Amino acid sequence: MSTASFFGDLSPVAYRGPESRDPLSYRWYDKDRVVLGKRMEDHLRLAACYWHSFCWPGGDPFGGETFQRPWMRPGQDPMAAARAKADVAFEMFRLLDIPFFCFHDLDAAPEGDTLAESVDNLKAITELFAAKMETAKVRLLWGTANLFSNRRYMAGAATNPDPDVFLYACGQVRAALEATHALGGANYVMWGGREGYETLLNTDLKRELDQMGRFLAMVVEHKHRIGFDGPILIEPKPREPTKHQYDFDVATVYGFLERYDLLADVRVNIEQNHAILAGHSFQHEVGLALALGIFGSLDMNRGDALLGWDTDQFANDIGELTVVMHDILKGGGFTTGGLNFDAKIRRQSLDPADLLHGHIGGVDSCARALLQAAQMLEDGALTGPLAERYAGWDGAEGQAILSGKRDLATLAERALTSGLNPQPRSGRQEYLENIVNRYV
Amino acid sequence: MSTASFFGDLSPVAYRGPESRDPLSYRWYDKDRVVLGKRMEDHLRLAACYWHSFCWPGGDPFGGETFQRPWMRPGQDPMAAARAKADVAFEMFRLLDIPFFCFHDLDAAPEGDTLAESVDNLKAITELFAAKMETAKVRLLWGTANLFSNRRYMAGAATNPDPDVFLYACGQVRAALEATHALGGANYVMWGGREGYETLLNTDLKRELDQMGRFLAMVVEHKHRIGFDGPILIEPKPREPTKHQYDFDVATVYGFLERYDLLADVRVNIEQNHAILAGHSFQHEVGLALALGIFGSLDMNRGDALLGWDTDQFANDIGELTVVMHDILKGGGFTTGGLNFDAKIRRQSLDPADLLHGHIGGVDSCARALLQAAQMLEDGALTGPLAERYAGWDGAEGQAILSGKRDLATLAERALTSGLNPQPRSGRQEYLENIVNRYV
Amino acid sequence: MSTASFFGDLSPVAYRGPESRDPLSYRWYDKDRVVLGKRMEDHLRLAACYWHSFCWPGGDPFGGETFQRPWMRPGQDPMAAARAKADVAFEMFRLLDIPFFCFHDLDAAPEGDTLAESVDNLKAITELFAAKMETAKVRLLWGTANLFSNRRYMAGAATNPDPDVFLYACGQVRAALEATHALGGANYVMWGGREGYETLLNTDLKRELDQMGRFLAMVVEHKHRIGFDGPILIEPKPREPTKHQYDFDVATVYGFLERYDLLADVRVNIEQNHAILAGHSFQHEVGLALALGIFGSLDMNRGDALLGWDTDQFANDIGELTVVMHDILKGGGFTTGGLNFDAKIRRQSLDPADLLHGHIGGVDSCARALLQAAQMLEDGALTGPLAERYAGWDGAEGQAILSGKRDLATLAERALTSGLNPQPRSGRQEYLENIVNRYV
Amino acid sequence: MSTASFFGDLSPVAYRGPESRDPLSYRWYDKDRVVLGKRMEDHLRLAACYWHSFCWPGGDPFGGETFQRPWMRPGQDPMAAARAKADVAFEMFRLLDIPFFCFHDLDAAPEGDTLAESVDNLKAITELFAAKMETAKVRLLWGTANLFSNRRYMAGAATNPDPDVFLYACGQVRAALEATHALGGANYVMWGGREGYETLLNTDLKRELDQMGRFLAMVVEHKHRIGFDGPILIEPKPREPTKHQYDFDVATVYGFLERYDLLADVRVNIEQNHAILAGHSFQHEVGLALALGIFGSLDMNRGDALLGWDTDQFANDIGELTVVMHDILKGGGFTTGGLNFDAKIRRQSLDPADLLHGHIGGVDSCARALLQAAQMLEDGALTGPLAERYAGWDGAEGQAILSGKRDLATLAERALTSGLNPQPRSGRQEYLENIVNRYV
Repeated sequence: MSTASFFGDLSPVAYRGPESRDPLSYRWYDKDRVVLGKRMEDHLRLAACYWHSFCWPGGDPFGGETFQRPWMRPGQDPMAAARAKADVAFEMFRLLDIPFFCFHDLDAAPEGDTLAESVDNLKAITELFAAKMETAKVRLLWGTANLFSNRRYMAGAATNPDPDVFLYACGQVRAALEATHALGGANYVMWGGREGYETLLNTDLKRELDQMGRFLAMVVEHKHRIGFDGPILIEPKPREPTKHQYDFDVATVYGFLERYDLLADVRVNIEQNHAILAGHSFQHEVGLALALGIFGSLDMNRGDALLGWDTDQFANDIGELTVVMHDILKGGGFTTGGLNFDAKIRRQSLDPADLLHGHIGGVDSCARALLQAAQMLEDGALTGPLAERYAGWDGAEGQAILSGKRDLATLAERALTSGLNPQPRSGRQEYLENIVNRYV
Repeated sequence: MSTASFFGDLSPVAYRGPESRDPLSYRWYDKDRVVLGKRMEDHLRLAACYWHSFCWPGGDPFGGETFQRPWMRPGQDPMAAARAKADVAFEMFRLLDIPFFCFHDLDAAPEGDTLAESVDNLKAITELFAAKMETAKVRLLWGTANLFSNRRYMAGAATNPDPDVFLYACGQVRAALEATHALGGANYVMWGGREGYETLLNTDLKRELDQMGRFLAMVVEHKHRIGFDGPILIEPKPREPTKHQYDFDVATVYGFLERYDLLADVRVNIEQNHAILAGHSFQHEVGLALALGIFGSLDMNRGDALLGWDTDQFANDIGELTVVMHDILKGGGFTTGGLNFDAKIRRQSLDPADLLHGHIGGVDSCARALLQAAQMLEDGALTGPLAERYAGWDGAEGQAILSGKRDLATLAERALTSGLNPQPRSGRQEYLENIVNRYV
Repeated sequence: MSTASFFGDLSPVAYRGPESRDPLSYRWYDKDRVVLGKRMEDHLRLAACYWHSFCWPGGDPFGGETFQRPWMRPGQDPMAAARAKADVAFEMFRLLDIPFFCFHDLDAAPEGDTLAESVDNLKAITELFAAKMETAKVRLLWGTANLFSNRRYMAGAATNPDPDVFLYACGQVRAALEATHALGGANYVMWGGREGYETLLNTDLKRELDQMGRFLAMVVEHKHRIGFDGPILIEPKPREPTKHQYDFDVATVYGFLERYDLLADVRVNIEQNHAILAGHSFQHEVGLALALGIFGSLDMNRGDALLGWDTDQFANDIGELTVVMHDILKGGGFTTGGLNFDAKIRRQSLDPADLLHGHIGGVDSCARALLQAAQMLEDGALTGPLAERYAGWDGAEGQAILSGKRDLATLAERALTSGLNPQPRSGRQEYLENIVNRYV
Repeated sequence: MSTASFFGDLSPVAYRGPESRDPLSYRWYDKDRVVLGKRMEDHLRLAACYWHSFCWPGGDPFGGETFQRPWMRPGQDPMAAARAKADVAFEMFRLLDIPFFCFHDLDAAPEGDTLAESVDNLKAITELFAAKMETAKVRLLWGTANLFSNRRYMAGAATNPDPDVFLYACGQVRAALEATHALGGANYVMWGGREGYETLLNTDLKRELDQMGRFLAMVVEHKHRIGFDGPILIEPKPREPTKHQYDFDVATVYGFLERYDLLADVRVNIEQNHAILAGHSFQHEVGLALALGIFGSLDMNRGDALLGWDTDQFANDIGELTVVMHDILKGGGFTTGGLNFDAKIRRQSLDPADLLHGHIGGVDSCARALLQAAQMLEDGALTGPLAERYAGWDGAEGQAILSGKRDLATLAERALTSGLNPQPRSGRQEYLENIVNRYV
């Protein structure tokens, strides 16, 4: 197949301003526009992902593939198909002018009959990527290993009851981590899709957590050994495919990192759809990670709040994105992380142009949210009232309490003898919501 | 009012065996029966709670009280009403032959016009309880302070933006902790009903977590100072009344205790209804607490999996209780903890007899679950297959990996060169479920 | 109390345009602005509700009142308090310049010791309202009866196992319907808050549905008898306070109306928060009601998709409101119905100004949505692609099939012999979502 | 492949009584035991399904097949594989001694390159089935057509915007209905897996409902034409694979059947997992169908209340099954319907024996529930209290009200003048729950 034939005569997507009626243009993403002293592109660090757009055939649990992409046709040489797929992928990165991408080992290169063959395949494709990246402007935001699709992992990778599976996972992760390093990846991600359980009747929680802790520690050690200086990112998700996944949410991952003493090297890669499946808002997960000092990167998509599974739709809720972006900017913005579009076009969106529409919607939504968030922050629209609300704690006595200089008896006695009768003050939620809507 | 008039001529509830058709008898709870070397009563450590049965008037968000208990009639002297309520409560403990109870400060004693008056009221009722406990056989499983009902706490107690509210909470907790100590309580519980937020727009997560950490540390210090040797128990709940409560679930509490270095003194009090609101099974929360070493006690009730709020119904799902009891027995059983019926009869269950029916159902369900769980454990019905499943890790090499004696490169290399090809083995879920149903 | 003292020196809320920074102004609601040939005020028919703003004290299941409104102080003469409340309510209607209001009988007038006394109280307040409405510009969008708060209704009103409760409900509804008629109400609403069950163990579904069907038929008959020409509106809600409410959602109400032959006189009053509790989007419920010909009116609020109970927050999700408004405009707009703010300020929003902020946010959100929806409709932004998508059915053969002129065998034969092989076409979801975001 | 080799030397599963420790025996299912005057087998009408056990390869959205069944190996002649699969299926029916089975057209016979070829394939396999059924004792509970897996149906079958897809579906359904008829099927089922939408932005609800109504009417007409006298069964499900499926739940289907005048010929096939996805209990859906007169058959499985997708696990919650069976027996039991195990073994349950364990658990759970339910019914354990609770409506006046002989004004007047003051009576929920647990 020729790449040209896939996207046909679709032109690169350019910025044309908010009034543009061209559906294949950007209305908000103006990459060189400077916002709060930084180029928009450098703020957002947008990434396309390999798996949803180029590996998913459009199937779901009740139906087969709908897309019928040329490189998925049965009977092809797998490595030839992988190269054809890479051509289309890099063509899409170019058309969208997107500065980063992300991939799993098995997205890029076909699984071989043996681990050795798989590793060789990955190396070959890594070299192909490296060659393409010399001329393309796209960089690698992160790489990762797929430890969940093959049946050998059905009962877990690191948490498998069979140590041989643990070993196999070691082999795969080393190769993927080194490939990421070779390509100059900014981070390395671990999503434990099968690190969880289907039933507690056959599960030893303590053993499995210890296995997982040791596995992650080994990855961290190896990262240092090879000189990879990006962080390891854990991607919290509460369930699906498993009934319960150990990296349930940000708070759970934090406790896990504390327990296995891994806070120094590991951060979280947060996804909106995973957040809501865990019963949290996207803003909560991001805010908590920032508060706990483990914020890393974002998988940018959206779920459907009425559905109980990962829909991975392209994000387009400007209101939600604006408050999230506000909190990230307030927290200093991205360092190694970025916004990875872990999103897929719907199963019925068959046309190559649909791939562009999906990404354009996501890119523009993030750009618009950035602009609005920056303005809110400059105006102190939320930060001002927030500081005022907690001002009582900023005084000497408040700080003395927080720093451990007061004990319960002292404070209790003070409350008792002073006839303390604190009066509640309005939380002003509606006022603040209206403020936000002024910017959205 | 006279106590006698409330329960009328209802007789004490006695054990009459599984074939009993008397709805006011126990069919399974035979307190002196020895199970795995311990009396049933000593295994279960059942407790009635003060709030649902004696303080809740039967209202809900859409309707007023239905119960119209004599001690709730308006216009009474609050302390006289509190004493009348205590009479009925202890009469119910006697009728049910239940060995423990639990209470919040404000369940027992009315709130005064000032903190000092509230503390005095609590002292007076504590003395009344102490006197009653001299003759009654009931003991105190735990006490706690209500830091969520009064409007002063609407924006949090420890996490309030106003330090004065924090102080007021110190005053209340000291008094409740000391009252618990005075009554020989086995534990002291903290449920942070308002320690969370309604909107992130007005919330500083980091500040609030730090406030909560310091508050808990002070309580732990005070406990040691006064010589209270029971643990402090945190009760996880994800939300309600708040949109988000910081003690979301067991994993979150664990991370919090790690962060503020409180693992030595604090454990969790787990509730079924809170577990499912957090998206977890009851068995999960119990199993995780056991695995993490923070299992303390249980609030025994059940929620409705189809409803999004706390229904606090009396537990009666024998299958669920049996596996939970199995895991607790496997973990060594309760030490200071027990099974507190944090459950309320339905709003339409108006009759005094309904209070007994609710508790009888709960007591018998726990007793039956204990018997079945003990048998499962004795037979090794689940523990046998479990040990077998993970046996691969018990060898020298498995232990070497887990103890940190192997690194990623070594294991990866071994996987690569050995042509490792681990084959999945059946998880046998249906087989194990059938095994459980053999005991239920 | 004097009314003036409640809102203090707050001025009437006026339209000041999108750039206004005055939090007590409208930025989008410009009532006389003509949109699609009709004044904005006449499109939206905005209504304030009596219950949330003037009757709810700020309590929740875990805490008491926070608002402490003057007219709620204990010990007042109930009718005097009701009059004081009415003064404040009409003052708020004036300040907000809102053209409609809604109320339950018991919101307006206190319940008496007997039904007769309650009815008398309602009459007195109805007269007060009528007098106020002569000078105020506010009109009545709908009235209703509260058949859920009093303990007599704990097991249902029409569906109560006790026929006497059914009779009592007849008494209340007749009075409320006639009061609504007397005040020139445009509709009469029925929300069956207790028409459902807590457990199927004590419930006869068939009996209860028949009771409810007969009750509604009697209301319809009475409406005709007294010459009330507005529709009766049923308000679907799936649960809460009950475990299951019979008017679960729009589709369920439709089936009920078919079964009891009430389609001619009854429509639905749809609420966003009820929609999502039932697992539907707001747009779905509105669209389905329009498709089935039973669309009546809207209770305008929003729930929190992560919470399992009715939060009744002021609506402010512009994206959601825009598509809903688009579909309503496409369906011809409101006739007797309107947008009732069945929304409450948060429990922590204590200040009188918070009441205004809540409504201002809601009003402006609806106004902005109307403007955007009208533009979308004028541009045919969604209607164009929709017509094109189904064009295949508009031909003679498509119409022949739909009108019953073809049978299965004929069509099957045609498919078989023609070698029919229909190819899927893109659903273009992302493209359409981007189109919508162009307007939002 | 030879059939024998699949199940190896596993023996037929026989009844061995409650004390049996043989995991491959029945402990409760004693088919000839007479319960309430009917053989257990004739009560339960148990059916195995073809799709989950023989067609699902063990994949999920995040992983490939795990089972690797011989008949699924790539490269085989599809019809030969279909015959091999049939051999294994009928062998399992024999081993389990299960009296019924169910299948989709495409489960049994491979899809051809054209509709004509598919129909031919189905005919060939139907003949094979017929031959096997002559000697096997198994009968057909129902047949159905798969109108959801092929990409041509991605936007619906009957509800597709393209009339050609509607025609194609006619061709498939005619063939499947006639095959069902030829095999003596007792019912014909329609599950509209793609009859719904992904987004309302591209959906015309009214058109699609009309298309679906006409389609169903044609099927009903054809059924009469060919002399098939079983009912058509609709299977309600709220969502998945679509965001919204039109046959949302029992109440929705009822309204649909009323609207398109199909109540006489169509009933519902209810599934536990679909019930809870719709926010209903299994007992609710069954009870409502019985109350509305549209109860048909059951898809017997269970979902996981904490997961938002169809898990289709084998049912084993005895408590839930007992109350459902009670209500079915009370309603007269099955006529044409039965209990179809629409359940699959977990993805990790790889072994042929797991297929037997899954079914054995399901069969025994149903049998035990039947025995318990029959006893409850004989004792009037629930029916007695129920009749008593509603007795007030059985009198002449209650009946007069229900039959329309009283109007609102009359009843309201009576309530008003009689000083009616109905007192609430206990709903006795805990008492009734304890009663049920006496039988479970």
